[in-house]
Amino acid sequence: MNFKILDCTLRDGGYYTNWDFNDALVEEYALAMEALPIDYVEVGYRSPSMKGYLGKYFYCPEYILKKLKSLMPSKELTIILNEKDITVSHIEEGLLNPCKQYVSTVRIAIDPKNMQRAVVLAKEVKKAGFSVAFNVMYMSNWKEDTSFLDYLEGLDEIIDYFYMVDSYGGVMPEDVKETIDLVRAKTSIPLGFHGHDNLEMALINTITAIDAGCDIVDATITGMGRGAGNLKTELLLTYLESAKKLPVAYRELSKVVSEFEELRKHYQWGTSLPYMFSGAKSLPQKQVMEWVGMNRYPLGSIINALNNQKQELKDN
Amino acid sequence: MNFKILDCTLRDGGYYTNWDFNDALVEEYALAMEALPIDYVEVGYRSPSMKGYLGKYFYCPEYILKKLKSLMPSKELTIILNEKDITVSHIEEGLLNPCKQYVSTVRIAIDPKNMQRAVVLAKEVKKAGFSVAFNVMYMSNWKEDTSFLDYLEGLDEIIDYFYMVDSYGGVMPEDVKETIDLVRAKTSIPLGFHGHDNLEMALINTITAIDAGCDIVDATITGMGRGAGNLKTELLLTYLESAKKLPVAYRELSKVVSEFEELRKHYQWGTSLPYMFSGAKSLPQKQVMEWVGMNRYPLGSIINALNNQKQELKDN
Repeated sequence: MNFKILDCTLRDGGYYTNWDFNDALVEEYALAMEALPIDYVEVGYRSPSMKGYLGKYFYCPEYILKKLKSLMPSKELTIILNEKDITVSHIEEGLLNPCKQYVSTVRIAIDPKNMQRAVVLAKEVKKAGFSVAFNVMYMSNWKEDTSFLDYLEGLDEIIDYFYMVDSYGGVMPEDVKETIDLVRAKTSIPLGFHGHDNLEMALINTITAIDAGCDIVDATITGMGRGAGNLKTELLLTYLESAKKLPVAYRELSKVVSEFEELRKHYQWGTSLPYMFSGAKSLPQKQVMEWVGMNRYPLGSIINALNNQKQELKDN
Repeated sequence: MNFKILDCTLRDGGYYTNWDFNDALVEEYALAMEALPIDYVEVGYRSPSMKGYLGKYFYCPEYILKKLKSLMPSKELTIILNEKDITVSHIEEGLLNPCKQYVSTVRIAIDPKNMQRAVVLAKEVKKAGFSVAFNVMYMSNWKEDTSFLDYLEGLDEIIDYFYMVDSYGGVMPEDVKETIDLVRAKTSIPLGFHGHDNLEMALINTITAIDAGCDIVDATITGMGRGAGNLKTELLLTYLESAKKLPVAYRELSKVVSEFEELRKHYQWGTSLPYMFSGAKSLPQKQVMEWVGMNRYPLGSIINALNNQKQELKDN
């Protein structure tokens, strides 16, 4: 295969569980990852203390990383930073120190309007000894203004992957192609794609991204992830096994999928009419997720509220 | 819009409910259809008495058709016949007589190997005063042998729509395009597409079919339908509203979607790893549906069984 697969189930799924996961489930997950053709496993966030309770996969203390690496010795582990919450001084003060032995790559989730600040952070992360990936959000809006891409100039040695993130889950395959052209016109940094499944476009968009030369793509078991969720790892692997003869350990895959399907009965991620609507209209998932999660409003009221919503909320 | 939409929720959803639906739900459904930009509503099968119990939407007696037509006066109603179970003499004996006042179009579900027989049946149905649609199954296998398409020659006046049915849910957008080319080389009968969602390709395959000139496409509320189910009507409409400015009555749509989501909690249609696997490998859904439906086998055993399954079972 001429591209890599990154599974970020614990990291992105944490939006539903507040970054708490049962130890036995995590162990099952790690053993499956070790057996499957996944290159990178993103295990959570690193973050200074935040207000309110957030579980251990939001902070990823060293004992967690050590345990996970011991369960997945052949995998590259990654963690992600929320650019809006992390400054250069956090890195200088050693935020990433516990990661050094276990994590190869640090990803940074970035609003395009903060690209300049993100570049400064990236240089510091690189200096700390990590590969760096940029996960840049709101790709469906990029056509309107591509000037943030100018900040990538001269950064080929700093940024190892530049990810296009379909934050709203609204892009279509032709948008993926167009956006890749936009980005390719500005940089030769290897590209990544992180798709959301609001319109059930995650697989076809990811295939389109791979065919257009993307070097790395994201997925999560059962699609677990904020809002409508992500490309399902089991869907990507089943497709690749059939279409490209990628060897897949279906026994381990089935087992971990079953475990997460149990969890899904409780948290109910996945697309539904409100997520379809928000995806098609490029509306933030966060709001929809709260409304859908409360399980209290009829679908029609949510759709109405979304329809009326004029203000532009951001997701992160 | 230069294409028609057919909703076949009751007909295809009946595979889960044995063609029984609560009267209040059907009324809700019919009112939603009447309010939505759906052209054709397929309300069930017509059939002579079959062994074992089958609900009223498998037989569609006149009082059902009358009631449904009164609830959806602006819609064209369709019913479907299973070609393997219906002979010319059934039509001669009046199987379709109760439909005459209410139903405009009779669809015929056909295994390509029975095309010759289906053509004879089609002529009889046409003679009885109906528009005729051919729903021809197993489109993922057509590339191997297109000779059955030769039977379409000279039938432009008999067959009003020729549907390509992605029975296994395994076709990809490029297969849709290729198959349309194959069919177009043999006939100028207007084309239809009926997609399944095993690989979450139903929407993109349907969009691809529309862009390639298909004249009619199928969908069902919440995707309710055999196995992994169909293109979701709410997904198609949300996409079309956003991309093509098709007016959509979201209030009515939300309401009917909510009702069927309740039903889905019980019957659990929709894709899952076994359906993805069977889709990717062009294996029949019927077997998978039985195994998944029993809720007794671990996913891994189902995948194993599918993997080992050498014999070629047909779905219908």
